[in-house]
Amino acid sequence: MVSFNAIDRLQALFSKLPGLGKKSAGRLVYHILDADSSYARALGEEILALHDTIRRCSRCGSYTELDPCPICSDPARDPVICVVERAQDVRVIEESREFRGRFHVLGGVIAPLEGVSPERLTIGELLVRVRREGINEVILAMNPTVEGDTTALYIRKVLEDTGTEVTRLASGLPVGGDLEYADRLTLSRSFRGRIKM
Amino acid sequence: MVSFNAIDRLQALFSKLPGLGKKSAGRLVYHILDADSSYARALGEEILALHDTIRRCSRCGSYTELDPCPICSDPARDPVICVVERAQDVRVIEESREFRGRFHVLGGVIAPLEGVSPERLTIGELLVRVRREGINEVILAMNPTVEGDTTALYIRKVLEDTGTEVTRLASGLPVGGDLEYADRLTLSRSFRGRIKM
Repeated sequence: MVSFNAIDRLQALFSKLPGLGKKSAGRLVYHILDADSSYARALGEEILALHDTIRRCSRCGSYTELDPCPICSDPARDPVICVVERAQDVRVIEESREFRGRFHVLGGVIAPLEGVSPERLTIGELLVRVRREGINEVILAMNPTVEGDTTALYIRKVLEDTGTEVTRLASGLPVGGDLEYADRLTLSRSFRGRIKM
Repeated sequence: MVSFNAIDRLQALFSKLPGLGKKSAGRLVYHILDADSSYARALGEEILALHDTIRRCSRCGSYTELDPCPICSDPARDPVICVVERAQDVRVIEESREFRGRFHVLGGVIAPLEGVSPERLTIGELLVRVRREGINEVILAMNPTVEGDTTALYIRKVLEDTGTEVTRLASGLPVGGDLEYADRLTLSRSFRGRIKM
């Protein structure tokens, strides 16, 4: 049996990434081997530089090359904070161009079974920011899951005394979706959240 | 709109890998960012070192850390050559432990529409090896596709005068498969290749 140490090591590292099993990780390694070595050089160098180039914004917690991030240091942004679970959610919302306010990355959602208590999230920092930055509205954009909803209720309670309006993103049928394939919970939400035409 | 240069660059590089679209490439980048920086360091260094550590065996064309590769330099290997399309196929067959001979990597299959003529493959080198190494049998293990079969026929013709036996891996129903889901071509092959019980 022949050993393939360098190939095995890289395959093992790749298979730690989300969505990559052992087999698909192996395909990546062979693709890199088959490709020109300049591709491997570029890929390796970008990965090595990533943590040095990208840090977390000390104010909102999103990934940025500058601290505070360009969004936090933009005076033209509305005094509205959109609260998201993870740093990559900031990008999704930015790219939708639906929102011109600021962000706050929670770092997860309350999940007692997984050991995530409210203290492990940046809820205290959110409260400080709401008061200091004179925020009019906090939009809770956690995913529409049980944990996301629980966390939303918790944050609403924490922000109760600030007088800030707290809202939650609408949940219901996705655009282009089909009633036939909607699950019962989504359908129930779309009824409860129905709007007057 | 905020730019995320380092993230974008790495995402673009990842999305060149097989099976990774823009979205899944983005997930990998954020996973690496979320993970400890030691993971990024290990991954980046392995990728950078890959082309220096792994080369192609000058005899059989498979990937190896030593040249000639451990298989080619093993005198206990049978004088039988298994011909495969790509270097990664060597590993699949080695891991099956079904074969104790040598390998020869073609570098593809004859595909005129994609500009792959027989001269672009290592068929000439195969002929030289068959003569020089006193090979008894050449097993053609290209994939059971139209191109694989065409290439097999071509190689059989090239090796005609050497007196070496040329065989092709059996094609038919996969073990554990279901007749109901077999395509017509596979079924036809399994009939033609039926064996006496």
